[in-house]
Amino acid sequence: MLDLNLDLKNKYYSLYSQIRGKILSGKIKAGEKLPSKRALAEELGVSVTTVQLAYEQLLAEGYICSRERSGYFAERVNSPEPPPRNQSVRSESAQKEKFFCDMVKGNTPAHMFPFSTWARLMRLVLADCGEHLLERVPCGGDPELKQAISDYLYRSRGLDVDPRHIIIGAGAEHLYDVVIKLLGRDKIFAVENPSYGKISSSYALGGAKWVAVNVGEKGIDVTQLANSGAHAVHISPAHQFPTGAVTPVSVRLKITEWANSVGGYVIEDDYDSEFRLSGKPLQNMFGLCPSRVIYMNTFSKTLAPSMRLGYMVLPPELYNRYITLFSSSANIVPLFEQKALAAMLNGGYFERLLSRLKNYYRGIRKTLLEKLFAFGGDCEVSDSGSGLHIIVKFPRAQSDAQIKERAAELGVNLKCVSDYLIAPRTGLEKRAVINYSGLTAEILEKL
Amino acid sequence: MLDLNLDLKNKYYSLYSQIRGKILSGKIKAGEKLPSKRALAEELGVSVTTVQLAYEQLLAEGYICSRERSGYFAERVNSPEPPPRNQSVRSESAQKEKFFCDMVKGNTPAHMFPFSTWARLMRLVLADCGEHLLERVPCGGDPELKQAISDYLYRSRGLDVDPRHIIIGAGAEHLYDVVIKLLGRDKIFAVENPSYGKISSSYALGGAKWVAVNVGEKGIDVTQLANSGAHAVHISPAHQFPTGAVTPVSVRLKITEWANSVGGYVIEDDYDSEFRLSGKPLQNMFGLCPSRVIYMNTFSKTLAPSMRLGYMVLPPELYNRYITLFSSSANIVPLFEQKALAAMLNGGYFERLLSRLKNYYRGIRKTLLEKLFAFGGDCEVSDSGSGLHIIVKFPRAQSDAQIKERAAELGVNLKCVSDYLIAPRTGLEKRAVINYSGLTAEILEKL
Repeated sequence: MLDLNLDLKNKYYSLYSQIRGKILSGKIKAGEKLPSKRALAEELGVSVTTVQLAYEQLLAEGYICSRERSGYFAERVNSPEPPPRNQSVRSESAQKEKFFCDMVKGNTPAHMFPFSTWARLMRLVLADCGEHLLERVPCGGDPELKQAISDYLYRSRGLDVDPRHIIIGAGAEHLYDVVIKLLGRDKIFAVENPSYGKISSSYALGGAKWVAVNVGEKGIDVTQLANSGAHAVHISPAHQFPTGAVTPVSVRLKITEWANSVGGYVIEDDYDSEFRLSGKPLQNMFGLCPSRVIYMNTFSKTLAPSMRLGYMVLPPELYNRYITLFSSSANIVPLFEQKALAAMLNGGYFERLLSRLKNYYRGIRKTLLEKLFAFGGDCEVSDSGSGLHIIVKFPRAQSDAQIKERAAELGVNLKCVSDYLIAPRTGLEKRAVINYSGLTAEILEKL
Repeated sequence: MLDLNLDLKNKYYSLYSQIRGKILSGKIKAGEKLPSKRALAEELGVSVTTVQLAYEQLLAEGYICSRERSGYFAERVNSPEPPPRNQSVRSESAQKEKFFCDMVKGNTPAHMFPFSTWARLMRLVLADCGEHLLERVPCGGDPELKQAISDYLYRSRGLDVDPRHIIIGAGAEHLYDVVIKLLGRDKIFAVENPSYGKISSSYALGGAKWVAVNVGEKGIDVTQLANSGAHAVHISPAHQFPTGAVTPVSVRLKITEWANSVGGYVIEDDYDSEFRLSGKPLQNMFGLCPSRVIYMNTFSKTLAPSMRLGYMVLPPELYNRYITLFSSSANIVPLFEQKALAAMLNGGYFERLLSRLKNYYRGIRKTLLEKLFAFGGDCEVSDSGSGLHIIVKFPRAQSDAQIKERAAELGVNLKCVSDYLIAPRTGLEKRAVINYSGLTAEILEKL
């Protein structure tokens, strides 16, 4: 019909711009009739709404006109205003993948996300809240979502959290920024070594001083922490990344003792604690010492990486400071997303998704471990049963570089523990970080 | 039927929690049949989807059960899990208004927002983009929205902006934070005195040094700026808040000369430039010197204050630094809002809204000016024909405090220019800031 080639990620826009291009170049002549919305939708295998959106835009910009009961016709466009602009806008997009198996990034497989439920909840929120969606959201977030998160934390972790003390933020990095503003840039933040590089770089970019403190099999080195001069410590006691360390209660208590003695704070980053695949989770740091612990989590790992939504629970003293600093600001997350997430939590959909994801990842992990056992003595798997990555030692490898090269030859993107060092340290060589959160049965099949 | 009293801002949630309360307290007995969704919706004057959402949540949490072809019945709830939690979650909400006329905050009247169009576009985006809405957005924002903003800036301001250089952010304060990270905290930011307090406080909270530079009738004092040691200057040349100063081209050129000479940057905050109600707008600073000017604007004034969506255009050098710093981060604004706004811009709805808003505010301003003329020589109106506020001098008033007291007696919330001083300065007394962006004909009637 029109010989179009749609970009599936951006259907309506590519449909719009291709028809516009054809009108501007004269391939569709002035006065020529365009296919009906329904016919074009069928031909292209897209929804009628997609075509409608494209036609509406062409209509608004004067490229086509609509005649009642006849359809849509191309307009005469002599000197187009605005002229077609061919600047490339795609430079930030990802490069072509050269690995078929990515064990570094690892986003939740899209097919696991209950998109139809989410879309339904969004439509319900739109109908239910109406124009109230346009209202200013209090600085800490929508009270309904805060209540829903408080209820969820109570059901899932036994945490008794005053919903007022929950702060909704736009993902982890934004929450780190708020913490820096709350504690002040004169404070020193201790960060685990090794750890996910974005933690220390976020503190640095936010203008705070940070110091690296080694993490061992039982979590952060408390003696080193006490000698570091730090006022706050950022840790993931449930499942440290990348070492996989689970901090035992005895060490957790020592950390809270330290925080009490220096009048400092523990930032408990619970980034993948939902994925404890075997055994019972340990009590949260926040539950041990609510006056000295900032509890932090996001929905990036559980819902979708595009969902820039996280939260933290502040101790009362910090909450009061938060209100002093931010009460005149509106919350940063659109109310629409907050309401949809509240409906997802309150309706039990989130916990059903978690249980599906856990089953899914149990299967992935099992297959993965079987593949690794085939290596025999060449590798040693250390798996704490928590989270979405495991550490595999290759004692006979020559170097970390060699491990990654071998993996790349197999089409596997891989990092080693040493890649996550934020300060020089030895003794962590020849350990590959196997992040399986983005893997599927199909990918594993090919390994 | 059930004797319910819904909170209209949160219909489904208050419906859910009230029914839950009645089941827990035994007011609805175990086994008792609940009204049908349709009947309850009719009685309460809400949509069936609202009731459906509430029933679904009660169902998910086990407070009610559903029997096929019979309806919904209350369950026996002995020891409720989780127990009802009565913590107040409303403490951050606004206090009761004691003024009927607010000339300080002034949000766009909700009835002006084309909610049905917006809701329709959101539904279209949901249908059109589907699961792609879950994908990670490149750090600078959705390419389609960036292109739409670039096209809009070209149509409305004649600005030729490479869409790549546009950065989508979550409102003004978030963009200030990004600018601090781009330019560095060792730099000094010059801020207009007087100005909106959130500008200097955002720089301070972001850890940057700032210095106040006086603003006069022709904009910022360039000599003082040159002597301030500043590396960057934050100005609103189109219509300064609160003085109302419009910076003439001669001064604009001097400011860009200064920026060139110190290798610094101008942050052109174009916060209300859409509302030039008479005459033609002056050329943007960005158009004068694209290599030294960061152009910044938001949709808070034009769409809704809850719409935490803004953008800035970076000079190429800063854009490259942005990519270096942030390429591993996802954009902070949900893709859903970005797509909906792109559809609004591309479909011409945004410009239609602007033109309706301008007409509306012309009417409000006319009535307001007539009211003020009735004061005769007691007041002098200075109105540049731009933006959504005017400055009114009361030369015979005793003090600024007296002006505000008198206004409060009339039920009017008002601030004076001196309330916006960010460093001591005299000569700006007895000037009231009449922000009419939140006013309606009904409110003006009562004045």
